[in-house]
Amino acid sequence: MTSVTLPRKDLFELPDGMIYLDGNSLGPLPKSVNAALSSMVTDQWGAHLIKGWNVDDWMGQPMRVGNMVGKLIGAAENSVTMGDTLSVKVYQALSAAVQMRPERKVILSDSGNFPSDLYMAQGLIAQLDQGHELRIVDPLDVMEAITDDVAVVMITQVDYRSGRMHDMTAMTAKAHGVGAVMIWDLAHSAGAVPVDLAGCNCEFAVGCTYKYLNGGPGAPAFIYVRPDVVETIKPALSGWLGHDAPFAFEQGYRPAMGIERMRVGTPPVLQLTALESALAVWDGVDMADIRAASIRLTDLFIAQVEDRCPSLTLFSPRDGVERGSQVSFASDNGYAVMQALIARDVIGDFRAPNLIRFGFTPLYIDEGDVIAAVDILADVLDNRLWDDPAYKAKGRVT
Amino acid sequence: MTSVTLPRKDLFELPDGMIYLDGNSLGPLPKSVNAALSSMVTDQWGAHLIKGWNVDDWMGQPMRVGNMVGKLIGAAENSVTMGDTLSVKVYQALSAAVQMRPERKVILSDSGNFPSDLYMAQGLIAQLDQGHELRIVDPLDVMEAITDDVAVVMITQVDYRSGRMHDMTAMTAKAHGVGAVMIWDLAHSAGAVPVDLAGCNCEFAVGCTYKYLNGGPGAPAFIYVRPDVVETIKPALSGWLGHDAPFAFEQGYRPAMGIERMRVGTPPVLQLTALESALAVWDGVDMADIRAASIRLTDLFIAQVEDRCPSLTLFSPRDGVERGSQVSFASDNGYAVMQALIARDVIGDFRAPNLIRFGFTPLYIDEGDVIAAVDILADVLDNRLWDDPAYKAKGRVT
Repeated sequence: MTSVTLPRKDLFELPDGMIYLDGNSLGPLPKSVNAALSSMVTDQWGAHLIKGWNVDDWMGQPMRVGNMVGKLIGAAENSVTMGDTLSVKVYQALSAAVQMRPERKVILSDSGNFPSDLYMAQGLIAQLDQGHELRIVDPLDVMEAITDDVAVVMITQVDYRSGRMHDMTAMTAKAHGVGAVMIWDLAHSAGAVPVDLAGCNCEFAVGCTYKYLNGGPGAPAFIYVRPDVVETIKPALSGWLGHDAPFAFEQGYRPAMGIERMRVGTPPVLQLTALESALAVWDGVDMADIRAASIRLTDLFIAQVEDRCPSLTLFSPRDGVERGSQVSFASDNGYAVMQALIARDVIGDFRAPNLIRFGFTPLYIDEGDVIAAVDILADVLDNRLWDDPAYKAKGRVT
Repeated sequence: MTSVTLPRKDLFELPDGMIYLDGNSLGPLPKSVNAALSSMVTDQWGAHLIKGWNVDDWMGQPMRVGNMVGKLIGAAENSVTMGDTLSVKVYQALSAAVQMRPERKVILSDSGNFPSDLYMAQGLIAQLDQGHELRIVDPLDVMEAITDDVAVVMITQVDYRSGRMHDMTAMTAKAHGVGAVMIWDLAHSAGAVPVDLAGCNCEFAVGCTYKYLNGGPGAPAFIYVRPDVVETIKPALSGWLGHDAPFAFEQGYRPAMGIERMRVGTPPVLQLTALESALAVWDGVDMADIRAASIRLTDLFIAQVEDRCPSLTLFSPRDGVERGSQVSFASDNGYAVMQALIARDVIGDFRAPNLIRFGFTPLYIDEGDVIAAVDILADVLDNRLWDDPAYKAKGRVT
């Protein structure tokens, strides 16, 4: 396969003058999406109405799109399906995982996990009322905390604040070595870094598609279950589209074979259509090229900022190998600094207490963007623009 | 308020020559949706990117659209929110309801409930492993089955096969009389019949928006919780957008005040935008007018079919007061009959073992459509078109 040359800015709608360093939160609009969605609405829903489930294969869309996502994360064919939100998919994976180790009561996670994953675990534990414990350790202490009382290790590979990456293969092996089940959250990994799900041998993975996969706000989540495990699972969210024969309308639930048992209700066809179109930007893209470009961009950003913005302190790992596709700096008045940056059309975000965070997406960000962004960041800091009420008013931080 | 005249066919894209009697399964495309969605994609996602969460108030959309739906079902302001699929919303309501009656173990439902509701209950019961029982009785026996061992009564108001309606006020009062919690599924009620949620005093209601509310395939579900109950609920699906302060990124879950605690993950902004636009067709519509027209249409359909198609047997209640906005007939060779009807562009559906089912939606169906549909149905039966291979090939039944 010949891989395409990066970046591919021409495939995206990027507002003039904006330097968009927040694709780790919401990807920009791929140019193909509007026409694809409009065609689906008019030519499928409008023209075929209920018949669209068959003639336009809306019913097969979660698996078809799941396979497109699966290719980007090293999953075998037909081991990924789409639907719901990431939080719901976390719940499904975690509920199944704790049932696989009924004699153990510890769910291990880390403080770098996205809070919603922790919340979902807390809700499940309270609901089950079976004495489970959510044990949250520092990201650097996870490996040694994987002990033989742990039922499930539930970790987000790339820390949403620092960008620090866990080693999926090593951690999964450690978990399996003590008899624990491994769940990976790939929210900040899918489309950002190479992932080899099949190779790492984890039982479960989940993730979202509105970040590096550019599926749009509210794009559906994905779930992967290792093929040799999936048919042992009794889904907690046992909806009709995970039934072996949804249209037989039987009174009793019988899970579908394979990953389809992780489907729940009616798929979000409009969101899936936008996502399916958005995923076309990956045609011919080699994730190794993405990774190499990402490290070049983030290394350049760190070097430039450290050279020109001495008041900022690097919060992300300095070694690119340990970093996802994002960089955070600790900054005094960080919130106001981000307000001023956004007012100047450099879009990043802020995470408490003092982090300014920037995502680098080689599909549409290049070295010129990095330099231009640092020019503005240095201006904001050197000239105390963050203290200017005009910028504060204009630069609303999301 | 002056109510508009029905039908409002001009507000919908209805394919030429099609008589669409399946709006109880998937509503047709309102004409406004394509432009609204395209504008959201281009002018909001494309132009504002991550800033859309604030400047376009995507974050407030679930509550805003929830209030639009709430008006159609008699819910108080800010007591309905949108998101997820109906099956997930059933799970949320049921999980909360059983926790409200920990000393009781019976979940009562009926065989007219949609199977996914029963499946979700089965999955929850297996997961909890606390000795709960799903007791499924005949729809006609529900009232007497509401006894003081019942924790939760979970019923779909309008039977998806027969169209038979339960009396929400009487059944809720009976449930409360024995100390049970009441959950209503309004999948076939919202936009079909007048609903007075606040008046009936039930604790929970859920429903979907792709049927009579025309939100499109995969449109998000809704959930209602009675305002005096909602803040006692510990959500099982405790996602970050149901947190009291989602963007504080705390490590511990604290439920939001009010109905927002029933939110889970990132809202499906594209689907919600389509739905929000679709709901504009209800402006100025009086649900009492919808109900009167629905009974006229279904009465006419029953009279015409019984007059002209003697081989069919009415399966729905004869009395319009007991019927939702759909009619089913038992038919020999029912599947093939529906194939032939669909091949002739009269769109209904088939439910095993022998039911042909038709929905009547006064927003876009009138008496002329009813007569024309029966003309074709009589032709199919009189001339055994259902036995013609050409029709079988063309009329794929969903």
